[in-house]
Amino acid sequence: MSTEISPLAPEQFPEMHPVAGVRLAAIEVGVRYEGRADVTLVDLAAGTTVAGVLTKSKAPGAPVDWCRKILPRGTARGLVVKAGNANVFTGDAGRIAVEETAAAAADLLGVEARDIYVASTGVIGEFLDHTIVTEQLPRAHNSLSETAWRDAADAILTTDTFAKGASRTARIGDATVTISGIAKGSGMIAPDMATMLSFVFTDAAIPAPVLQNLLVRNAEPTFNSITVDGDTSTSDTLLLFATGQGAEHPVPTSADDPVLAEFSAALHDVLHDLALQVVCDGEGAQKLIEIRVTGAESDAAARRMGLVVANSPLVKTAVAGEDANWGRVVMAVGRSGELADRDRMSVSFGGIAIARDGRPVEGYDEAPVTAHMKGRKVLIETSVGVGGGAWTVWTCDLTHGYISINADYRS
Amino acid sequence: MSTEISPLAPEQFPEMHPVAGVRLAAIEVGVRYEGRADVTLVDLAAGTTVAGVLTKSKAPGAPVDWCRKILPRGTARGLVVKAGNANVFTGDAGRIAVEETAAAAADLLGVEARDIYVASTGVIGEFLDHTIVTEQLPRAHNSLSETAWRDAADAILTTDTFAKGASRTARIGDATVTISGIAKGSGMIAPDMATMLSFVFTDAAIPAPVLQNLLVRNAEPTFNSITVDGDTSTSDTLLLFATGQGAEHPVPTSADDPVLAEFSAALHDVLHDLALQVVCDGEGAQKLIEIRVTGAESDAAARRMGLVVANSPLVKTAVAGEDANWGRVVMAVGRSGELADRDRMSVSFGGIAIARDGRPVEGYDEAPVTAHMKGRKVLIETSVGVGGGAWTVWTCDLTHGYISINADYRS
Repeated sequence: MSTEISPLAPEQFPEMHPVAGVRLAAIEVGVRYEGRADVTLVDLAAGTTVAGVLTKSKAPGAPVDWCRKILPRGTARGLVVKAGNANVFTGDAGRIAVEETAAAAADLLGVEARDIYVASTGVIGEFLDHTIVTEQLPRAHNSLSETAWRDAADAILTTDTFAKGASRTARIGDATVTISGIAKGSGMIAPDMATMLSFVFTDAAIPAPVLQNLLVRNAEPTFNSITVDGDTSTSDTLLLFATGQGAEHPVPTSADDPVLAEFSAALHDVLHDLALQVVCDGEGAQKLIEIRVTGAESDAAARRMGLVVANSPLVKTAVAGEDANWGRVVMAVGRSGELADRDRMSVSFGGIAIARDGRPVEGYDEAPVTAHMKGRKVLIETSVGVGGGAWTVWTCDLTHGYISINADYRS
Repeated sequence: MSTEISPLAPEQFPEMHPVAGVRLAAIEVGVRYEGRADVTLVDLAAGTTVAGVLTKSKAPGAPVDWCRKILPRGTARGLVVKAGNANVFTGDAGRIAVEETAAAAADLLGVEARDIYVASTGVIGEFLDHTIVTEQLPRAHNSLSETAWRDAADAILTTDTFAKGASRTARIGDATVTISGIAKGSGMIAPDMATMLSFVFTDAAIPAPVLQNLLVRNAEPTFNSITVDGDTSTSDTLLLFATGQGAEHPVPTSADDPVLAEFSAALHDVLHDLALQVVCDGEGAQKLIEIRVTGAESDAAARRMGLVVANSPLVKTAVAGEDANWGRVVMAVGRSGELADRDRMSVSFGGIAIARDGRPVEGYDEAPVTAHMKGRKVLIETSVGVGGGAWTVWTCDLTHGYISINADYRS
């Protein structure tokens, strides 16, 4: 973890609600880092269900392969996370290391290995002898606690500059349930310290297929609507565990069950909060950028346009330079391949229209725009004049800090 | 044009073969720049055919709309290029300005307006009164010359740091014909100074449909295989004119006509040379990167993978840092969405295998790799272990220079 904290970091790590049926521990193993915890063990109560969204990379790490293999079972009893070595591009030895790690954790917790989830981030292509971790796991097992959220949030970090957590409560029927989650991923998706992990836990009782549906639909507008440099990691992993150990409530039969309305909104809030914290920890980030696209052919088209704008180095450097450069926004929208009506397009920064109907707005008030660009949060809105599709994405600016971090990474 | 010349620039502007039927002139109008020529006029002999490849942007500039409209006629008698104002996002006024410019040039040359091609690059969304240019065109007309290639190559530049030209001869049957071309586009595709233009001329006699086919197939492995920051400009324009004024030769009936074999190869060379000069003038570029992908499902898949690697900020910053970071190459290939066999993938830098069969090569010789990374040209090869598809793409590294240029662009 870097010592210089992102200027976009929250003021403090949030208060985390404990989640009945979840116990956590973080220990220092020395996978790569010294003087900090780097291995996390989570114990999950019997009956826990699980949902997951995993990287679409065609060259995923061995832990991702493992999670993908066991996810269809829908049950979970534990989680092991290693920080510092991604176990990616490690061949058969990497696969075996994951299986042995799961087996060791399963032995400790008295459960089946196929109910143990494993995630790793860090260096690619370096093989780590799994015994370095498994021999230490009993120490983690001995220190499991319902309150070690901050310890776990710290222990999963790699190049992040701050720990990321979010916690909410929601009602399902008359019962109040809890959702608490942690995340890592230092924004700029860095395959050497491979990327985004997030683990979210609730004490609600939700069948696995319903949980999966809830997670997918809430991941779309949150984790799947952020980008830092457009690179996709070999290790991206988002897991949602439901222990069913909280107050009793009606068990939902589908994600559309009205009893889940408040829970789904709270889950969205947790995922949104964590996703934005990941963007705010983008390497070199000085500004958080929100891009709202409206008037597109469909929501999907608006999302694709928003991501092209968000990934444009020219848009990101313009924001870094505090320049309301709407021409670069037009360029990015134009190259997205999605339908836009050039002569009906509009662009605004900080709510002030700068271009409208395909032309610059004559004599718009520059002062509030300039003030907006100097702030930490920059809002870019564009309407593309075609239909009713809308989407919002988030990114950060592209600064000298990014080049410094990534051009000197391994040296 | 910047005063600090790219370290990747050729030692000198090449000797340009004149092209029978082509006369050029460049004049200083003061569109945006002072103390340099910024408007180019080209006079083309009667009977000239034309082919073109234009930006795929959905928000193209008015000159691109105009070229697209007249291209199906297949004939050309003149070309006007303005540097400093892109005439993009300028509404109806922009469209009229192009038509008036074409009309004024047509009057001077005694031809039809619909045979005059127009191209502009520069600031987006600022309307330029076309009379500033058209009133000066007679001056250009008076100075037309068969040898003013360097003048024209200079006058079309915007943020480029050096003039770009290439020239070849080739035989069609017993006749020797000439191909000479110029280009601009300061690499990082910058919509404010909008991007890549290239104009290529030959004295061969080639029917327009054949010429179009030749241009498209030779643009694919050249201009369409380079990238600097993945952004697509609103103005990208590549035009090929054939005057038919050179030595007499058999007229080809198709692009596959064997009589064209040598000509097609020479056209490829000219386009390749110009395209690489564009990359070598990438904003902040310190190194030229060649990426060869083999073993893909198809050539198209290999090309898409190559472009994803080439556009990855993490790969580009690694090269800037002289780090043979093969993990970032694997990551980029993995996220391309194209089929790759992780356990059969290999990566080499400068011809030295660093990873093979999905694993790092134990004890490979680092010294030659380190030496290679310190050079101006970096070769990255990856085989993805699926099929026989192969493609090569070119890009440049991502440096602090890019951030400096683009974050402070308008200020």
